[in-house]
Amino acid sequence: MFRHVVLFTWAEEATAEQRATVATELLKLPEVIAEIRAYTVGADAGVNPGNHDFAVVADFDDVDAYGVYRDHPIHQAVIAEHIKPILASRAAVQYVC
Amino acid sequence: MFRHVVLFTWAEEATAEQRATVATELLKLPEVIAEIRAYTVGADAGVNPGNHDFAVVADFDDVDAYGVYRDHPIHQAVIAEHIKPILASRAAVQYVC
Repeated sequence: MFRHVVLFTWAEEATAEQRATVATELLKLPEVIAEIRAYTVGADAGVNPGNHDFAVVADFDDVDAYGVYRDHPIHQAVIAEHIKPILASRAAVQYVC
Repeated sequence: MFRHVVLFTWAEEATAEQRATVATELLKLPEVIAEIRAYTVGADAGVNPGNHDFAVVADFDDVDAYGVYRDHPIHQAVIAEHIKPILASRAAVQYVC
Protein backbone atom coordinates (compact mmCIF):
# COMPACT_ATOMS: atom_id res chain seq x y z
CA MET A 1 0.00 0.00 0.00
CA PHE A 2 1.10 3.55 -0.67
CA ARG A 3 -0.15 5.98 1.97
CA HIS A 4 -0.38 9.76 1.60
CA VAL A 5 -0.64 11.83 4.80
CA VAL A 6 -1.05 15.58 4.95
CA LEU A 7 -1.68 17.85 7.94
CA PHE A 8 -2.80 21.47 7.68
CA THR A 9 -3.01 24.46 9.96
CA TRP A 10 -5.58 27.06 9.04
CA ALA A 11 -5.30 30.83 9.11
CA GLU A 12 -6.78 32.32 12.27
CA GLU A 13 -9.40 34.17 10.23
CA ALA A 14 -10.66 30.95 8.59
CA THR A 15 -14.35 30.59 9.40
CA ALA A 16 -15.97 27.42 10.70
CA GLU A 17 -17.84 27.20 7.39
CA GLN A 18 -14.63 27.41 5.37
CA ARG A 19 -12.98 24.69 7.50
CA ALA A 20 -16.02 22.43 7.19
CA THR A 21 -16.19 22.95 3.43
CA VAL A 22 -12.66 21.55 3.02
CA ALA A 23 -13.79 18.26 4.55
CA THR A 24 -17.02 18.19 2.53
CA GLU A 25 -15.25 18.82 -0.77
CA LEU A 26 -12.40 16.37 -0.12
CA LEU A 27 -14.84 13.61 0.81
CA LYS A 28 -16.34 13.86 -2.69
CA LEU A 29 -13.03 12.78 -4.24
CA PRO A 30 -13.30 9.01 -3.65
CA GLU A 31 -16.46 9.07 -5.80
CA VAL A 32 -14.60 10.55 -8.77
CA ILE A 33 -11.01 9.25 -8.45
CA ALA A 34 -11.13 5.48 -8.78
CA GLU A 35 -7.51 5.05 -7.69
CA ILE A 36 -8.37 5.95 -4.07
CA ARG A 37 -8.55 2.76 -1.97
CA ALA A 38 -9.30 4.41 1.39
CA TYR A 39 -9.79 8.02 2.38
CA THR A 40 -10.26 9.67 5.76
CA VAL A 41 -10.22 13.34 6.71
CA GLY A 42 -10.91 15.13 9.94
CA ALA A 43 -10.48 18.16 12.14
CA ASP A 44 -8.17 17.77 15.10
CA ALA A 45 -10.01 16.39 18.12
CA GLY A 46 -8.40 18.86 20.52
CA VAL A 47 -6.90 16.19 22.74
CA ASN A 48 -3.34 17.51 22.64
CA PRO A 49 -1.95 21.06 22.53
CA GLY A 50 0.16 22.26 19.63
CA ASN A 51 -1.47 20.07 17.01
CA HIS A 52 -2.18 20.91 13.41
CA ASP A 53 -5.84 21.61 12.58
CA PHE A 54 -6.81 19.06 9.94
CA ALA A 55 -5.64 15.71 8.55
CA VAL A 56 -6.02 13.75 5.33
CA VAL A 57 -4.93 10.09 5.05
CA ALA A 58 -5.35 8.53 1.61
CA ASP A 59 -4.38 5.00 0.57
CA PHE A 60 -3.45 3.79 -2.93
CA ASP A 61 -2.15 0.63 -4.52
CA ASP A 62 1.10 2.30 -5.52
CA VAL A 63 2.87 5.58 -6.16
CA ASP A 64 1.42 5.90 -9.67
CA ALA A 65 -2.12 5.68 -8.34
CA TYR A 66 -1.23 8.34 -5.77
CA GLY A 67 0.06 10.52 -8.61
CA VAL A 68 -3.29 10.28 -10.38
CA TYR A 69 -4.96 11.60 -7.21
CA ARG A 70 -2.39 14.32 -6.56
CA ASP A 71 -2.66 15.73 -10.07
CA HIS A 72 -6.37 15.13 -10.67
CA PRO A 73 -8.02 18.38 -11.80
CA ILE A 74 -10.93 18.02 -9.37
CA HIS A 75 -8.49 17.53 -6.47
CA GLN A 76 -6.46 20.49 -7.66
CA ALA A 77 -9.65 22.57 -7.80
CA VAL A 78 -10.44 21.75 -4.15
CA ILE A 79 -6.90 22.79 -3.20
CA ALA A 80 -7.11 26.06 -5.15
CA GLU A 81 -10.65 27.04 -4.17
CA HIS A 82 -11.01 25.76 -0.59
CA ILE A 83 -7.64 24.85 0.97
CA LYS A 84 -5.17 27.49 -0.20
CA PRO A 85 -7.41 30.46 0.71
CA ILE A 86 -7.33 29.47 4.41
CA LEU A 87 -3.99 27.60 4.57
CA ALA A 88 -1.37 28.67 7.12
CA SER A 89 0.99 25.67 7.00
CA ARG A 90 1.21 22.15 5.60
CA ALA A 91 3.16 19.00 6.53
CA ALA A 92 3.11 15.86 4.37
CA VAL A 93 4.62 12.39 4.02
CA GLN A 94 4.00 9.64 1.49
CA TYR A 95 5.18 6.17 2.46
CA VAL A 96 4.98 2.52 1.53
CA CYS A 97 3.33 0.35 4.17
CA MET B 1 -12.47 5.00 14.67
CA PHE B 2 -10.05 7.37 16.34
CA ARG B 3 -6.97 8.01 14.19
CA HIS B 4 -3.66 9.43 15.41
CA VAL B 5 -1.30 10.90 12.81
CA VAL B 6 2.16 12.27 13.51
CA LEU B 7 4.84 13.46 11.09
CA PHE B 8 8.47 14.07 12.05
CA THR B 9 11.46 15.78 10.54
CA TRP B 10 14.84 14.50 11.69
CA ALA B 11 17.95 16.46 12.57
CA GLU B 12 20.42 16.60 9.67
CA GLU B 13 22.99 14.69 11.71
CA ALA B 14 20.60 11.77 12.34
CA THR B 15 22.20 8.62 10.94
CA ALA B 16 20.45 6.11 8.72
CA GLU B 17 20.69 3.62 11.57
CA GLN B 18 19.02 6.00 14.03
CA ARG B 19 16.20 6.71 11.57
CA ALA B 20 15.68 3.00 10.88
CA THR B 21 15.67 2.19 14.59
CA VAL B 22 12.69 4.49 15.14
CA ALA B 23 10.63 2.39 12.72
CA THR B 24 11.85 -0.89 14.19
CA GLU B 25 11.07 0.13 17.76
CA LEU B 26 7.67 1.64 16.95
CA LEU B 27 6.61 -1.48 15.06
CA LYS B 28 7.05 -3.49 18.25
CA LEU B 29 4.30 -1.50 19.97
CA PRO B 30 1.26 -3.28 18.46
CA GLU B 31 2.54 -6.48 20.08
CA VAL B 32 2.50 -4.93 23.55
CA ILE B 33 -0.32 -2.36 23.44
CA ALA B 34 -3.57 -4.23 22.83
CA GLU B 35 -5.55 -1.03 22.21
CA ILE B 36 -3.83 -0.51 18.83
CA ARG B 37 -6.20 -1.58 16.02
CA ALA B 38 -3.94 -0.70 13.07
CA TYR B 39 -0.44 0.74 12.93
CA THR B 40 1.68 1.88 10.00
CA VAL B 41 4.95 3.79 9.98
CA GLY B 42 7.29 4.77 7.18
CA ALA B 43 10.00 7.02 5.87
CA ASP B 44 8.97 9.56 3.27
CA ALA B 45 9.12 8.07 -0.24
CA GLY B 46 10.80 11.13 -1.72
CA VAL B 47 8.07 11.76 -4.27
CA ASN B 48 7.45 15.39 -3.35
CA PRO B 49 9.81 18.17 -2.21
CA GLY B 50 9.40 19.83 1.17
CA ASN B 51 7.94 16.81 2.92
CA HIS B 52 8.49 15.71 6.48
CA ASP B 53 10.78 12.68 6.94
CA PHE B 54 8.68 10.05 8.72
CA ALA B 55 5.03 9.23 9.42
CA VAL B 56 3.06 7.25 11.99
CA VAL B 57 -0.66 6.49 11.54
CA ALA B 58 -2.28 4.59 14.41
CA ASP B 59 -5.95 3.59 14.70
CA PHE B 60 -7.93 3.03 17.89
CA ASP B 61 -11.53 2.35 18.87
CA ASP B 62 -11.83 5.66 20.68
CA VAL B 63 -9.96 8.51 22.32
CA ASP B 64 -9.48 6.56 25.57
CA ALA B 65 -7.74 3.74 23.73
CA TYR B 66 -5.50 6.30 22.03
CA GLY B 67 -4.67 7.71 25.46
CA VAL B 68 -3.49 4.30 26.64
CA TYR B 69 -1.08 4.20 23.67
CA ARG B 70 0.08 7.80 24.06
CA ASP B 71 0.91 7.37 27.73
CA HIS B 72 2.14 3.76 27.66
CA PRO B 73 5.59 3.53 29.28
CA ILE B 74 7.04 1.43 26.46
CA HIS B 75 5.85 4.00 23.91
CA GLN B 76 7.23 6.81 26.04
CA ALA B 77 10.56 4.96 26.22
CA VAL B 78 10.75 4.79 22.41
CA ILE B 79 10.06 8.52 22.24
CA ALA B 80 12.69 9.34 24.87
CA GLU B 81 15.41 6.97 23.66
CA HIS B 82 14.99 6.94 19.87
CA ILE B 83 12.78 9.80 18.63
CA LYS B 84 13.68 12.86 20.74
CA PRO B 85 17.47 12.47 20.25
CA ILE B 86 17.09 12.99 16.47
CA LEU B 87 13.88 15.04 16.34
CA ALA B 88 13.88 18.38 14.50
CA SER B 89 10.12 19.03 14.24
CA ARG B 90 6.80 17.32 14.77
CA ALA B 91 3.26 17.79 13.40
CA ALA B 92 0.29 15.82 14.71
CA VAL B 93 -3.48 15.49 14.44
CA GLN B 94 -5.93 13.12 16.12
CA TYR B 95 -9.34 12.81 14.52
CA VAL B 96 -12.52 10.77 14.52
CA CYS B 97 -13.19 9.01 11.23
